[in-house]
Amino acid sequence: MKLPGQEEFEHSSAHENVLAEELDSGLGPGPSLGGPSDTDNGESGVSKDPLLFIQLNELLGWPQALEWRETGRWMLFEEKLEVDAGRWSAPHVPTLALPSLQNLRSLLAEGIVLLDCQAQSLLELVEQVISGESLSPELRGQLQALLLQRPQHHIQTAGFRPCRGPKAFRNASFDEDTPVKHQNPLKQKLPPGAEAAAVLAGELGFLAQPLGAFVRLRNPVVLEPLTEVILPSRFFCLLLGPPTLGRSYHEMGRAAAVLLSDPQFQWSVRRANNLHDLLAALDAFLQEVTTLPPGRWDRTARIPPPKCLPSQRKRLCSELQEVTGLSRGSAAQAGDRHHHGQHAPSPELQRTGRLFGGLVQDVRRKACWYPSDFLDALHPQCFSAVLYIYLATVTNAITFGGLLGDATEGAQGVLESFLGTAVAGAAFCLMAGQPLTILSSTGPVLVFERLLFSFSRDHSLDYLPFRLWVGIWVATFCLVLVATEASLLVRYFTRFTEEGFCALISLIFIYDAVGKMLNLIRAYPIQRPGSPAQGCFCQFSGPGGNVSEWTSTKHKDTDVLSVVRKAFSDFSSVLAILLGCGLDAFLGLATPKLLVPTEFKPTLPGRGWLVSPFGANPWWLSVAAALPALLLSILIFMDQQITAVILNRAEYRLQKGAGFHLDLFCVAVLMLLTSALGLPWYVSATVISLAHMDSLRREGRACVPGEAPHFLGIREQRLTGLVVFILTGVSIFLAPVLKFIPMPVLYGIFLYMGVAALSSIQFMKRMQLLLMPTKHQPDMLLLRHVPLSRVHLFTAIQLACLGLLWIIKSTPAAIIFPLMLLGLVGVRKALEWVFSPLELLWLDELMPEEEKNIPESGLEPEHLFSRDGNEDSELMYQPKTPEINISVN
Amino acid sequence: MKLPGQEEFEHSSAHENVLAEELDSGLGPGPSLGGPSDTDNGESGVSKDPLLFIQLNELLGWPQALEWRETGRWMLFEEKLEVDAGRWSAPHVPTLALPSLQNLRSLLAEGIVLLDCQAQSLLELVEQVISGESLSPELRGQLQALLLQRPQHHIQTAGFRPCRGPKAFRNASFDEDTPVKHQNPLKQKLPPGAEAAAVLAGELGFLAQPLGAFVRLRNPVVLEPLTEVILPSRFFCLLLGPPTLGRSYHEMGRAAAVLLSDPQFQWSVRRANNLHDLLAALDAFLQEVTTLPPGRWDRTARIPPPKCLPSQRKRLCSELQEVTGLSRGSAAQAGDRHHHGQHAPSPELQRTGRLFGGLVQDVRRKACWYPSDFLDALHPQCFSAVLYIYLATVTNAITFGGLLGDATEGAQGVLESFLGTAVAGAAFCLMAGQPLTILSSTGPVLVFERLLFSFSRDHSLDYLPFRLWVGIWVATFCLVLVATEASLLVRYFTRFTEEGFCALISLIFIYDAVGKMLNLIRAYPIQRPGSPAQGCFCQFSGPGGNVSEWTSTKHKDTDVLSVVRKAFSDFSSVLAILLGCGLDAFLGLATPKLLVPTEFKPTLPGRGWLVSPFGANPWWLSVAAALPALLLSILIFMDQQITAVILNRAEYRLQKGAGFHLDLFCVAVLMLLTSALGLPWYVSATVISLAHMDSLRREGRACVPGEAPHFLGIREQRLTGLVVFILTGVSIFLAPVLKFIPMPVLYGIFLYMGVAALSSIQFMKRMQLLLMPTKHQPDMLLLRHVPLSRVHLFTAIQLACLGLLWIIKSTPAAIIFPLMLLGLVGVRKALEWVFSPLELLWLDELMPEEEKNIPESGLEPEHLFSRDGNEDSELMYQPKTPEINISVN
Repeated sequence: MKLPGQEEFEHSSAHENVLAEELDSGLGPGPSLGGPSDTDNGESGVSKDPLLFIQLNELLGWPQALEWRETGRWMLFEEKLEVDAGRWSAPHVPTLALPSLQNLRSLLAEGIVLLDCQAQSLLELVEQVISGESLSPELRGQLQALLLQRPQHHIQTAGFRPCRGPKAFRNASFDEDTPVKHQNPLKQKLPPGAEAAAVLAGELGFLAQPLGAFVRLRNPVVLEPLTEVILPSRFFCLLLGPPTLGRSYHEMGRAAAVLLSDPQFQWSVRRANNLHDLLAALDAFLQEVTTLPPGRWDRTARIPPPKCLPSQRKRLCSELQEVTGLSRGSAAQAGDRHHHGQHAPSPELQRTGRLFGGLVQDVRRKACWYPSDFLDALHPQCFSAVLYIYLATVTNAITFGGLLGDATEGAQGVLESFLGTAVAGAAFCLMAGQPLTILSSTGPVLVFERLLFSFSRDHSLDYLPFRLWVGIWVATFCLVLVATEASLLVRYFTRFTEEGFCALISLIFIYDAVGKMLNLIRAYPIQRPGSPAQGCFCQFSGPGGNVSEWTSTKHKDTDVLSVVRKAFSDFSSVLAILLGCGLDAFLGLATPKLLVPTEFKPTLPGRGWLVSPFGANPWWLSVAAALPALLLSILIFMDQQITAVILNRAEYRLQKGAGFHLDLFCVAVLMLLTSALGLPWYVSATVISLAHMDSLRREGRACVPGEAPHFLGIREQRLTGLVVFILTGVSIFLAPVLKFIPMPVLYGIFLYMGVAALSSIQFMKRMQLLLMPTKHQPDMLLLRHVPLSRVHLFTAIQLACLGLLWIIKSTPAAIIFPLMLLGLVGVRKALEWVFSPLELLWLDELMPEEEKNIPESGLEPEHLFSRDGNEDSELMYQPKTPEINISVN
Repeated sequence: MKLPGQEEFEHSSAHENVLAEELDSGLGPGPSLGGPSDTDNGESGVSKDPLLFIQLNELLGWPQALEWRETGRWMLFEEKLEVDAGRWSAPHVPTLALPSLQNLRSLLAEGIVLLDCQAQSLLELVEQVISGESLSPELRGQLQALLLQRPQHHIQTAGFRPCRGPKAFRNASFDEDTPVKHQNPLKQKLPPGAEAAAVLAGELGFLAQPLGAFVRLRNPVVLEPLTEVILPSRFFCLLLGPPTLGRSYHEMGRAAAVLLSDPQFQWSVRRANNLHDLLAALDAFLQEVTTLPPGRWDRTARIPPPKCLPSQRKRLCSELQEVTGLSRGSAAQAGDRHHHGQHAPSPELQRTGRLFGGLVQDVRRKACWYPSDFLDALHPQCFSAVLYIYLATVTNAITFGGLLGDATEGAQGVLESFLGTAVAGAAFCLMAGQPLTILSSTGPVLVFERLLFSFSRDHSLDYLPFRLWVGIWVATFCLVLVATEASLLVRYFTRFTEEGFCALISLIFIYDAVGKMLNLIRAYPIQRPGSPAQGCFCQFSGPGGNVSEWTSTKHKDTDVLSVVRKAFSDFSSVLAILLGCGLDAFLGLATPKLLVPTEFKPTLPGRGWLVSPFGANPWWLSVAAALPALLLSILIFMDQQITAVILNRAEYRLQKGAGFHLDLFCVAVLMLLTSALGLPWYVSATVISLAHMDSLRREGRACVPGEAPHFLGIREQRLTGLVVFILTGVSIFLAPVLKFIPMPVLYGIFLYMGVAALSSIQFMKRMQLLLMPTKHQPDMLLLRHVPLSRVHLFTAIQLACLGLLWIIKSTPAAIIFPLMLLGLVGVRKALEWVFSPLELLWLDELMPEEEKNIPESGLEPEHLFSRDGNEDSELMYQPKTPEINISVN
């Protein structure tokens, strides 16, 4: 679920002040904002405030050796200079003592506040600030000289430092002579337009009175030596005073910096007209601080940056609530729930009511993206994705080719599998609504085909012509489904259905990969040369070794390396494959290698490429084929659409939209084609498609220390898929090269994809809860809202369904398997009798009708319990990154 | 390092109000405490305030269905009722909005404060509170009835709940009819003397004015239905009022509860005389709260309880500092550093200056503990420890017996090893200063003996008589060392030396265990019955399986089970061993089994038990033996004393003290005995002794939710060791039973002990830093204070030393190995030229002379940098649990 405001916020989280925009969207700033809200309306849409880099310079060494030193910096979070260690601390959430904020307030209240100061340089600025003070001329000169003194900035020294005690520190750790700012790596990371704020704080013995000044420059000016990064400064804050009891200027300086790093305070203070506005903004900040009791929390503990920053919109709401008198923000609450619960159907899922209306709309919608579908592929990441998915696809083609050849006694074989995959996949990538989908033979379809072949053999039917008619009927049924916009039913495929399906497919992947490797161990026992045949040396380094190396490489890539980290992680799978191949070649292991057909002709001897429509079959069989075709249609619809729903989840932030109708149309047409050519049937493959999308993730670089890299979306284009399938087609002729790839490496890919897909679904997390004592359970949001026994019940039902599916898949009754998938939707529907809509909202998501049953919060007395302001928008914390994903992390 | 005040604090962390005691120790409460500090001096030593159980009851359902419900409870941390989920949240650090504290303050300031109220029941209490208010009689009656109404307490329902929507919730989740308090499990967990505090908050439409009341009862009274746990209530806080904008009574109620859960506020308010004192205590609390900025921290996030609670003493210091005008608490700082840096030598390590003075003191000190050394063993945990250590000891005896037999061509064998271990070990346990020590043959001694045997064989000497003379000389040298109190030199064995030694021994353990298992795989190839000899089925389930099962059982024990958790974890090692044996027997694996000698006679044929003093050797050999004896003495001194230092670390909280001199004396005497009988030589074995101590850890039950179980100490006694060695002796006759134990299980024990010991030392953590990019490094305290390059340098030096030791151990030069161990101390000493004392303080610990070089903080300008009040007592956060340990966690 995405919340419009919040998504906006996350997109621009580096420069997060989207307050103004939100204000324009009807919320309006409350008086408590302390800002001149009325005068501001003219600015609408312009005022995405720039990111502020805040630096704290402290005056140290009083009285002998006065000098300024940078001791802290803030962007989103605080970084503290570890003086002894000579390095920046990790970014952390700043914590302040309350008195430091109060002291700062009183100092500013008595001090000088210059808003829209016109100074053009530090000298002018300092003169203006000092002129406001009643100081003796001598003191004034002294102060001015001091303020113009260059501060010592810190550089990170990586190499060996000569032996030194604390006294030698100054020379070693601070570069006193050369200005280090020019090579500051931070500068490149900051977004364009970033501004600086300098806070100067310290104790100065010759001052009789504290001297506080806050300056906002009308036009930001580079105040040359003040900040380590050369940026135009917008704010300047001076906090000096005689050493006084209980007034730490260091802490006050930190408080000022933390205030300036707060987006809302910054918003207000950029628009403040006078001292009163400034203090009002500070007070508004104070009203919102979170306090931790001293006896239970130690201020020295550093809190790492939270994964999810609080939404500014939420803060505004809570302000508004106080102002407009809405009791406990029930309006905001209801709004949140509304956004979550009642997701308005996306345009792809709106009924047109016309025959083929959905299809037409899909085509129309996708057509305008068509050129960009090729231009957007120009990124090195796509190369890695192609290699990864190509290998997975080839593995799939070989595996299913082998299995199909086995199941149909050669009516289809590896060559057909390669050819069909290439033709169908490429065609789909060119025409489909969601070109990120990878077509493949799938387990369910394979099971069905095996049953169909047994049937036709038992009744002495000519298989391929019979199969052609089944295909024709399936295509017909699918076209009917397209015409009637049946794809809209995908709204009934909730997470319950998706997870059940995904878990099943993942388990099949894992089961097959492990099974194949165990078979390999039997078939290819590994022997050390020279070891006696009797007492052979047992080790796994052949197949097993490759797999574990696969995962360990993955792991290493993500954990240890950093500068070249991104590049490596983009290509980690490729590296793992190459490493596996290299190791295999180096050790000369007798592993089975990839088998690629060398001749281009159908596997079954004596048949042409085109299947004859009747062959030796009676004419009425073409009509009777409609019966199995009906079952197959259900299967294909479910298999195709569940995958489509998973791929098109809102969390992936797809920009170009889905095309459920168009996808199904393509599958139907390709069904016709492959049946006529005697090639395997293809539908969307969940796991490989997810791997495809994952390998195309776009992530924003964390420009600011402590900020998590944000997921920006997927590189949506048609080229990677197209190239993958062209390569698959070409692979028929690449036998001399491909034959060096050991099969265990390919099985490793399968295993990895299965495990990754399985481990990422919420179902698995709930499975773990079953075994975990209450005390050790993680603080999952759903556990805050649903009784544990209910969670367990839901998980148990899901588990039972999965078990049933697995059993049915493995028995001769497998042909009714499609119906069982439909049954999942029915089971989910039946759960309405067991679970309340609110429980289902947390455990699953809601079906269209259920959304109406969610009571409007805040209206009934019962709802007063879950009201306490804090929790209302917890739904906003539901993961916004994809739920089912194959993460490389 | 333990700080007196702090250790006290940790011991009694459940009832942590040791403020008064600390005050008595010279600190004295500042006026800002708000408490009547002067009148309090009479209470000294009495006033360990009882633990307070605080419950928040809220008035809900206005206006239709008014009722009180428990919605939160506090002891150390906050537990919130998850109304929807029907369970208590995990304990977490409470967070408050600042306005709620301010609102509470103003409400209390205008409200009724009854201190030392004499009410004997809830009715009386309510009457007294209401009488203070100017209410109409009718309203008064209504209010009184309301306040006497029984609140709904929460019970955790574990089973299946009938299907229900939110409306049905009230009936399902709350037990309305039966009072649940009688079976409340919390009651048993609370320490005796615990008191309750009830906070009642809510909105009441018919009130015209807010009604705030704070009551302290002179004598705590059970206010029958108020709290879920039947406890005498000391405090009663009432916060009612008309629904007003921006005043959440829920949040105010939470604020009151959090205040009461703060030890310092509680201390003050227990002694408050009037409203002014109460408000002063609240203000003192406000001065100390930690604030988190709203834009960077979301109040809905729950902070798990910190591992280490802030010390109340530290809070007092920071208060004092403001009051007495000590700039930046430099006095407190210096105090902290003093405690850390200059650890006054413990009584065991004070020079007496008399011959055998240390030994006499040791005997005198240990004598008074002697009876308790047997009585303290009466705990089931000891049984488990005996079994665990017995198996480890037997493994050691067999392993070293085999190796020694091999090295000395049968001059010593498995029988001698068993007998020697039993005799020496039992004698040591009966007489030694530190009876938790487990004697064993050790790697270094084995290496030395092998060299000695080669030498005597090469020169055609009669080995055992020669060895007897070496033993006599070693015993003599050791006695000289005892007489001259040379054991005081252990103060030069810093963590650098200990870790180097520990890492080496651990690596030897791991190396040996893995090596032995690999040998087993060669010697005992595992074959599936019926599988062809050529393509045998390769699997590890024999030896490897046992080991992994060992560790996985460990893991499972600690992670999954909870009610029986403690019992299981006490016996996890035994269970793992039994499981391993059972699996081995069940599968009928052809693993090698434990070999126990069946006849009681020396391994070497034709020798009696007593070694003749000269045999075939020339007389002067008895003098020449002094030369190798010198090297061996160094080795034994180092090996023995490093282990002793590690075992007697302050972090283990040993109550009965160490006995360095006595231990060495015992080793010397046993050296004489074993030499005369031709048995192996024994010194303390680091890893097994640590495992012994670990299996005897006493941990306090966490009585309060969220509190970490605290380490209370070790069961110091002589019985477990004694029984272990008696069992070892008896094992000679237990061959029929013991022969079923597979050797791989014993190797598993070795491997586990080695890995556990290795992974727990700081050196290993620093090793990881070498490979980790700066960004991903954990927030280790030493990294805040020592530049990374210096840390790396220190680690590299340590690594180089370890490498050198390993190389020397493996070469023919191994005989100078003892000198190299001494060399470690020299290297550490030389590090003074490379590192500053402060760096060494963080990276290692200080040698006696170095302590003088630590500059007094706050005196030099350089020191102003690391001063910011927060960090000064970070040293107090240095781990207080053992540094090197074999943790089961």
